[in-house]
Amino acid sequence: MRFEISKDSLLYHLIIAQKALSTKTPNPALTGIKIDAADGKIAITTSNGDISIHVTIEDPSVVIDAPGSMLVPGKYLVEIVRKLESPIVTLSVVDQNLLRIEADRSDITLNLFDLDDYPALQFKTQEDFINVNVRTFKTLIRQTAFAASTIENRPILTGVNLKLEGNALKAVATDSYRLSQKAIELKQNYTSMNVIVPSKSLEELLRVLENNQVDIELHFNQNSVLFKYQNILFRSRLLEGNYPETAKLIPKEFGTTIVFNKEQLQTAIDRASLLSYRDGQNAIVKLNLREDDVVEISSNSPEIGRVLEEVYPVAEVVGKPLKIAFSSKYLIEALKVFNSSEVSIAFTGEIRPFVVTGEFDPQMLQLILPMKTD
Amino acid sequence: MRFEISKDSLLYHLIIAQKALSTKTPNPALTGIKIDAADGKIAITTSNGDISIHVTIEDPSVVIDAPGSMLVPGKYLVEIVRKLESPIVTLSVVDQNLLRIEADRSDITLNLFDLDDYPALQFKTQEDFINVNVRTFKTLIRQTAFAASTIENRPILTGVNLKLEGNALKAVATDSYRLSQKAIELKQNYTSMNVIVPSKSLEELLRVLENNQVDIELHFNQNSVLFKYQNILFRSRLLEGNYPETAKLIPKEFGTTIVFNKEQLQTAIDRASLLSYRDGQNAIVKLNLREDDVVEISSNSPEIGRVLEEVYPVAEVVGKPLKIAFSSKYLIEALKVFNSSEVSIAFTGEIRPFVVTGEFDPQMLQLILPMKTD
Repeated sequence: MRFEISKDSLLYHLIIAQKALSTKTPNPALTGIKIDAADGKIAITTSNGDISIHVTIEDPSVVIDAPGSMLVPGKYLVEIVRKLESPIVTLSVVDQNLLRIEADRSDITLNLFDLDDYPALQFKTQEDFINVNVRTFKTLIRQTAFAASTIENRPILTGVNLKLEGNALKAVATDSYRLSQKAIELKQNYTSMNVIVPSKSLEELLRVLENNQVDIELHFNQNSVLFKYQNILFRSRLLEGNYPETAKLIPKEFGTTIVFNKEQLQTAIDRASLLSYRDGQNAIVKLNLREDDVVEISSNSPEIGRVLEEVYPVAEVVGKPLKIAFSSKYLIEALKVFNSSEVSIAFTGEIRPFVVTGEFDPQMLQLILPMKTD
Repeated sequence: MRFEISKDSLLYHLIIAQKALSTKTPNPALTGIKIDAADGKIAITTSNGDISIHVTIEDPSVVIDAPGSMLVPGKYLVEIVRKLESPIVTLSVVDQNLLRIEADRSDITLNLFDLDDYPALQFKTQEDFINVNVRTFKTLIRQTAFAASTIENRPILTGVNLKLEGNALKAVATDSYRLSQKAIELKQNYTSMNVIVPSKSLEELLRVLENNQVDIELHFNQNSVLFKYQNILFRSRLLEGNYPETAKLIPKEFGTTIVFNKEQLQTAIDRASLLSYRDGQNAIVKLNLREDDVVEISSNSPEIGRVLEEVYPVAEVVGKPLKIAFSSKYLIEALKVFNSSEVSIAFTGEIRPFVVTGEFDPQMLQLILPMKTD
């Protein structure tokens, strides 16, 4: 095996593949990057068990002198290629189990792993796949996946529920204290589908997707999903089980609705959380809609001090005064994903979940459960 | 006590004072920032036992309604002021032991510490002080302090030795494996002086000094030094004891001298350290001057692989071929402080210290002890 390639192109694609590279694993072969050279193309494959990436390089810089395959210690390869300065690098297998990297005045050899130890990975596409504009898809994930649980006591909640009906693709994530939901319209109707994708997989996927107008293809399988995007195949396992019925959690009638300038609300909560009483990880802040329709955001820590912020709603308040307490983290994270500069918060009662929506964020809602205080 | 001040000015000076704020200390009062308002000026004082900072704010934004003093929980004050958006903030003591911060629609109170618990700090200037251009002084510290020891087994080596004779101020730091030395010329002669300043203090001092053409004043005391720079007084304790005689460690005669392009040498060592054999923290690389005057930088890790870099000297090599091994970290850190784009490395022998100098770094030398390999 021997080929030369532009250093920048190799590095760019290694960094994509690195997203699925195992760092700690009982199987050392998974800390390796598999490289295949054949038919004028270089293929790079990585897997950490949960996700697998297969990326193909087919650019004018690739010159294959001898086709072949090898399994390279992943971390070292990426670090070395990153530090090379030569525009072109040559990779070849020498003495059967050594990779030799030649670049300008650098001559580097790396001990290869045994290719036979690498698992057989499937990157099979389906005939019946779903097409989504990549920017629309990124928004769908960005606005929901953050709300999934990060603790494993209910594994199903560490995933994002993707549900397809007709031409509507809906994503829901919840950790049981807050919920995020967003739907998008596809260009055509598809067969119905209901799966749970680990939110971690989707967060990694976001990092390899660019902000262009290309479509991303979703190929669903019995227990995995394959995302096809440009020259990248990204596969994730699915979570098994039934996702909870979340529709019934969302209140339909509201006693009070307040419209805020998003940034003003964010900075007020941000300051209030500095001194707030902490219940575990969560800084608790209070919201108080006064009779004069001014909103007070406050927090109180007897040992440290007190913050009181006044926020003026940007539209007439609908409904009656109310006091409610909640985790500042949840509201800050929810506000962050809105594109709208004004957000509407609708309350049902002081111990009922409240709902955040925004005019320029169609079919998206963020729900947060309040916290009890004395 | 009550005053108003520009938020930016307050934050700017708090961040300077924060450099001497204790985070972990048996004395909780030292986690406080002392603020005094009097005579149209605000003074901010902090101390962590090793260093103390006193900074005076006297700008047009300061309006003192009622003079006074207070001791504020430091971390919270800085975080709060950082997050305020109002251009002007008002600070006042209310109910005797509460600081009230009013800014735009924010109303914040912080429980104050007891001012009586704060130590009496001295910021006494001397009549006979030393004047140095601040940029020259920063270079002196930047090029030496990094070589001081960070481990406490020989406390004296955690300091930088400052020695004044006539108009020459010389700084030396060593951790016994490498040594850094630089001298500067002052504008006049002074009384001789020989002290050891903790390198940590000097690193913190660097962070409060700007890159302007102002002078910094050095006021030496029995067991402390006070740096006076613009509106900042920065005091550090001195280390007690005798600094080792380092002059005799520096070889005077050299068998081989090689001139390198600094950047080429840096990147070659950088790549070689990626795979090098590690003895504790130190990646060992080898330098081999071949008969053909090409230099090989190499490293070898039997389990991972091998790096071989060729570096071409940029001037005729003086002396005979040689092989030497050393810690890549020491040479990389030494090269980093040179302003010269070409550096000269002079060797006495394979187990003798070698010396790095640069044409555009007058009166500076970096010395490194080689490591033994098999």
